[in-house]
Amino acid sequence: MKIAILGYGTVGSAVVQFLLENQKLIRARCGKNITPVIALTRTPKKNALIPITQNIDEILNAEVDVFVELMGGVNETFKIVSEILKKKKAVVTANKAMLAYHRYELENLAKDIAFGYEASVAGGIPIIKVLKEGLSANNILTIKGILNGTSNFILSSMSEKNMSFKQALEKAQNLGYAEANPSFDIEGQDAAHKLLVLSSIAYNLKAKPENILIEGISQITPEDIYFANEFELTIKLLGIAKVRENKVELRVHPTMINKDTMLAKVEGVMNAISINGDLLGESLYYGAGAGGKATASAVISDLMDIAKDQAKTPMLGFVNTLEYKLLDKDEIYTKYYLRMKVEDKIGILSKITQLMSQNDISIDSFLQKPKKNDENYSTLFFTTHLTYEKSIQNLLKILDQQDFIKTKPFMMRIE
Amino acid sequence: MKIAILGYGTVGSAVVQFLLENQKLIRARCGKNITPVIALTRTPKKNALIPITQNIDEILNAEVDVFVELMGGVNETFKIVSEILKKKKAVVTANKAMLAYHRYELENLAKDIAFGYEASVAGGIPIIKVLKEGLSANNILTIKGILNGTSNFILSSMSEKNMSFKQALEKAQNLGYAEANPSFDIEGQDAAHKLLVLSSIAYNLKAKPENILIEGISQITPEDIYFANEFELTIKLLGIAKVRENKVELRVHPTMINKDTMLAKVEGVMNAISINGDLLGESLYYGAGAGGKATASAVISDLMDIAKDQAKTPMLGFVNTLEYKLLDKDEIYTKYYLRMKVEDKIGILSKITQLMSQNDISIDSFLQKPKKNDENYSTLFFTTHLTYEKSIQNLLKILDQQDFIKTKPFMMRIE
Repeated sequence: MKIAILGYGTVGSAVVQFLLENQKLIRARCGKNITPVIALTRTPKKNALIPITQNIDEILNAEVDVFVELMGGVNETFKIVSEILKKKKAVVTANKAMLAYHRYELENLAKDIAFGYEASVAGGIPIIKVLKEGLSANNILTIKGILNGTSNFILSSMSEKNMSFKQALEKAQNLGYAEANPSFDIEGQDAAHKLLVLSSIAYNLKAKPENILIEGISQITPEDIYFANEFELTIKLLGIAKVRENKVELRVHPTMINKDTMLAKVEGVMNAISINGDLLGESLYYGAGAGGKATASAVISDLMDIAKDQAKTPMLGFVNTLEYKLLDKDEIYTKYYLRMKVEDKIGILSKITQLMSQNDISIDSFLQKPKKNDENYSTLFFTTHLTYEKSIQNLLKILDQQDFIKTKPFMMRIE
Repeated sequence: MKIAILGYGTVGSAVVQFLLENQKLIRARCGKNITPVIALTRTPKKNALIPITQNIDEILNAEVDVFVELMGGVNETFKIVSEILKKKKAVVTANKAMLAYHRYELENLAKDIAFGYEASVAGGIPIIKVLKEGLSANNILTIKGILNGTSNFILSSMSEKNMSFKQALEKAQNLGYAEANPSFDIEGQDAAHKLLVLSSIAYNLKAKPENILIEGISQITPEDIYFANEFELTIKLLGIAKVRENKVELRVHPTMINKDTMLAKVEGVMNAISINGDLLGESLYYGAGAGGKATASAVISDLMDIAKDQAKTPMLGFVNTLEYKLLDKDEIYTKYYLRMKVEDKIGILSKITQLMSQNDISIDSFLQKPKKNDENYSTLFFTTHLTYEKSIQNLLKILDQQDFIKTKPFMMRIE
């Protein structure tokens, strides 16, 4: 089986390297040789292990069986991949952004053509296969995933090493875990793309990133970490899908979770996805969510499935008859954490709790730390019982208009 | 697709129940109806959801596409399954004992016939699929699995609730997690059967239970738990496969592992398998390892793969060209923990350490607790640096002959 590689960066070169290094193993395990014959690269490379070209047309006309797309990009790349599928050639991709926007168009084009995308979610963890095949007998009740290693590294560093967000981000950048412009990772976009891919397999949801609730971790302070520790909680950036009757909540945001859950124990740059199915109950999948070798593991396993002629089911797994709808953001129903800085005067707490009850929000726990001498405000921490997103958003709007509030209140959801 | 169920107990009835309850979902996800038409049962059942029979010949002659074997048993069942395969009918089984002894004969018989056995290892966790397909690009360096929920429940209870082994076993029996005769679970046989299945997919090892090192958890005392806690370790019954050059260690035994590993965090009856691949690094798979519903999840996913015509690769995954050999037990090379009760006399510690160094064993840590008033012996705890199994076994033999040793020394391996 001959393949062409589009994009010869970290992942592309790892794919080529290990197709060659593990050649004997790969043939033993899938019954065929898988041979990379040409790679597309933007910048010429010395010591490339296979012939390279900078000419996209040369790649597209190459006589190969499978195209591996590792270029990134959304609309331009979608056009190129569409062209390949129209030629009835199989595709393997790691491109979650393209899938977040174009997965249903791609599925239409890929009828009877193998289309692998294991590498698009959680790097080397075979979560696409698990969800599409391994758990296929289950109604999926919830998916909760640590889908972005950069954010998890930052939150772990803040929690274990008492760093500020800024210090932890700098550490991540120094170690190469975060990019110079980290917003795609830390503001939840990357995790949202992955959640959307998973939600299609589980629920046939056609949502795009702009349709769902996405919040990042940049507003989290050491005070939040302190509060979480006091109450046996841990803060993780989670992608969450949750069924309520015929509707599904989809959301990405920093989340307080119990310290004794398996997800809470996932540290550093690792990824993990917890899935709750009606038959299996909770199962969890943990591993490296990024990096050349880990991602190559997923790309090559997709290629091997194609070699075994075992990848012909519809790309998103026959879900087209499932009838779930996206739940409106306002209807999200969960517990909340609130942190606010207020004037240190008589009657403030009573005003706040009055505003809460007017919005149908009841308090589950409350913490006020003794004021330090040099501070002219008090910091209050609340957690609430289950309530609607709409109520909390309304409360936040009203609180923000109050004179006694010193800085914009910060809210985080609790699972 | 019509199926017959052989064995209508907890798992069999859950399979039938959920094939019916999740019928619409199953059709949506695999494109076919999967219909259970007849079940074999030893004892007549009231309220069976489908026709039942006590006559094996009636089942074997039923006009169905797939036979689901949930009877248990080794040789007799192997004969029945062989007969089915000779008729060119697909088989799905949860029977790890049969696979531990007959998997290679079954693979020979199942050429071009679908043979699913996801439910045989770790219940509903799709670990067979993960290893056979998801991680297929990887040389598997190690497999470390908590493969028996009963043992894990007992060890968790001993560790968290300060119970003795006997108390924890009784609790497990009261909760229905352990059988009246628990030896199959607590002495490591069950975990060994599962490890053997995994080792065939990863390494093409033809070993049988009697060829590998199997030790159970019944000799573990609260003192061992105490020591583990002191040194930030946790005790788990692990099935371990580990590559050393062209050879593979296979062993099942209670193991001390670092408290901060993901495996150490697996509590109660849950199962988890940590796999280290040369591309992916460590990944871990966690979930329910037993129970009717969880096991049915795996059985039905196998049936759905067959319905999708996606289960035609060789049963053990094309591994027949891999050339690993089983490592001799004596050559196992790891760290060890030793607990021994000795006379409280001058010079004893010096004698013990001399015997250790004569056997090329060097001490990594040592603990002696102050003797209580009513004790006429001292308890000593050691951990060693890396050494060979042969050396430790020799040391244990020599120690056992010494007058100053009050009870047979106890040894546990450390990872």
